[in-house]
Amino acid sequence: MRITDVAALAGVSPGTASKALNDTGQLRRETRERVRRAAEQLGFTPDGRARALSSGRSYTVGLVTTDSSGRFSIPIMLGAEDALSAGEMALLLCDTRDDPLREQHYLRTLLARRVDGIIVTGRRTEPRPPIAVPIPVVYAFNGSTDPADAAVLVDDRGGAASAVTHLGDIGRTAIAHVTGPERHRSAVERARAAAETAGPAFRGPPMYGEWSERWGRQAVDLLLRAHPDLDAVSCGSDQIARGVCDRLRELGRSIPDDVAVTGFDNWDVMALACRPPLTTVDLELEELGRSAARMLLDAVDGRPHRGAVELPTRLVVRGSTLAD
Amino acid sequence: MRITDVAALAGVSPGTASKALNDTGQLRRETRERVRRAAEQLGFTPDGRARALSSGRSYTVGLVTTDSSGRFSIPIMLGAEDALSAGEMALLLCDTRDDPLREQHYLRTLLARRVDGIIVTGRRTEPRPPIAVPIPVVYAFNGSTDPADAAVLVDDRGGAASAVTHLGDIGRTAIAHVTGPERHRSAVERARAAAETAGPAFRGPPMYGEWSERWGRQAVDLLLRAHPDLDAVSCGSDQIARGVCDRLRELGRSIPDDVAVTGFDNWDVMALACRPPLTTVDLELEELGRSAARMLLDAVDGRPHRGAVELPTRLVVRGSTLAD
Repeated sequence: MRITDVAALAGVSPGTASKALNDTGQLRRETRERVRRAAEQLGFTPDGRARALSSGRSYTVGLVTTDSSGRFSIPIMLGAEDALSAGEMALLLCDTRDDPLREQHYLRTLLARRVDGIIVTGRRTEPRPPIAVPIPVVYAFNGSTDPADAAVLVDDRGGAASAVTHLGDIGRTAIAHVTGPERHRSAVERARAAAETAGPAFRGPPMYGEWSERWGRQAVDLLLRAHPDLDAVSCGSDQIARGVCDRLRELGRSIPDDVAVTGFDNWDVMALACRPPLTTVDLELEELGRSAARMLLDAVDGRPHRGAVELPTRLVVRGSTLAD
Repeated sequence: MRITDVAALAGVSPGTASKALNDTGQLRRETRERVRRAAEQLGFTPDGRARALSSGRSYTVGLVTTDSSGRFSIPIMLGAEDALSAGEMALLLCDTRDDPLREQHYLRTLLARRVDGIIVTGRRTEPRPPIAVPIPVVYAFNGSTDPADAAVLVDDRGGAASAVTHLGDIGRTAIAHVTGPERHRSAVERARAAAETAGPAFRGPPMYGEWSERWGRQAVDLLLRAHPDLDAVSCGSDQIARGVCDRLRELGRSIPDDVAVTGFDNWDVMALACRPPLTTVDLELEELGRSAARMLLDAVDGRPHRGAVELPTRLVVRGSTLAD
């Protein structure tokens, strides 16, 4: 099926048919519509590659991710894809599996395909070395070590502060914080903000461990021994918070009456399956992906952004802090 | 940076440089290498779009998914991407969010981009209406209602049979099955295979409910009332199995000594966080994605497959059936 067939059916020249389908040139509206109906009738789709070659753009964006579990990158990708498809851009997925050689291979491939730009994401929030390519790049979720690079990040401190402020609002006066490894930037940022926000109510030091339910359970035993007056635990992840809740229940403590608990991530399978369901901090990752895509579209249009922005998180209140 | 610059640096004609970089024509090995070194030095990457136009192929595959949580589609996508990138094909991601209009939009976009083929996947295993496109299509995880369509599916019956056979092997003689809604094909297939495999040891009927931990907890109470001799529960998902384990533990039953429990999915956050860790059926989704991609590559090369194949699952044995 070629454009000449469409032109013949519509009774116009191939040049006119091409203008009608590409929305260019000066044509009567009626002519444009006749060509479009003919194209639809014949199942003709214009060749996107030809348009790409003539415009100097491929209308394609590469998404390079190191997060092969997809837990963080999937919502980011969905948000980016949503914003990009509105701009008629398609997303090429490249999973590097944390392998620098694989990343180099993908970058070469993306450049060879003449993508208009690249979104880089990963599962850690530690800044990563910038990628060196001659096209626009936006970092999402994990930033670049070059502070001038365009990046959209989670406001970890704001998120932790919102959870601890909520614990204060419901009258808690002895608040601990249990989180992941101290070598992880996000764990440290959340812990510092929790301690600062709790002020004299903080029962420190922050408990660094691992991002697991087991650590949450173990931390409860340590905490109750050190702080018998404990009435709230703010956690650095929903997995940890779920472990905290399980252990508190096993010890006969009521949640939230005796001890209120907050999570971080709003990861549905954890937050909703927890007993009671978790009050937690939603990272708004889909919105983060959308923002990164919009920044990239701006850069492709010649209006690049500079530096990192942190997007606000959203506190979701459930039964682990407020009983029904 | 253009190919003429590469040619100048290598001291050859642009035509020779092009042949060297595209691995065509009759050139001395030394010349080819000199051109490649020059290209590398200048950071020159050949234009993939031009190659695509001249070969009539775009070296691009569309992946259309309805699984916006990504739990099933992510490993499938990673496997597909792995197999495709070996064939220098890139993957365009299209998330339809279960919206038929969005799906139509994506199919038109993919055709306009002249993708070489399409992989269709989703989070349910019910056969779906076939998509009507004039290029090769392979269905992965959820098949098409047209039995002639190429599809790679999970062997749900084989998976359930392997779990129940294992329960028999460890001496269990009173085995129940707890699973998701009866309207889901995968729930019914797994339940039937479990009942058949257990034979006289089956404590039926299969318990259909929802894919949740809560249903697993509720089912335990019903089961222990109906079958006081119960010594094993085979579950249709890891989430259900985790709920079953939690409730059994709350009731003071030891796992696996009093009651052995098996899951289905090998979803790490559920299977490993469960107390004890779950014996479960791994769906081998990455291998499924790889197989779908290989079938698609064959079809693009003019050797289409017909019909659905079911890939074997893999039983992973952990503490919920065999104590350490």
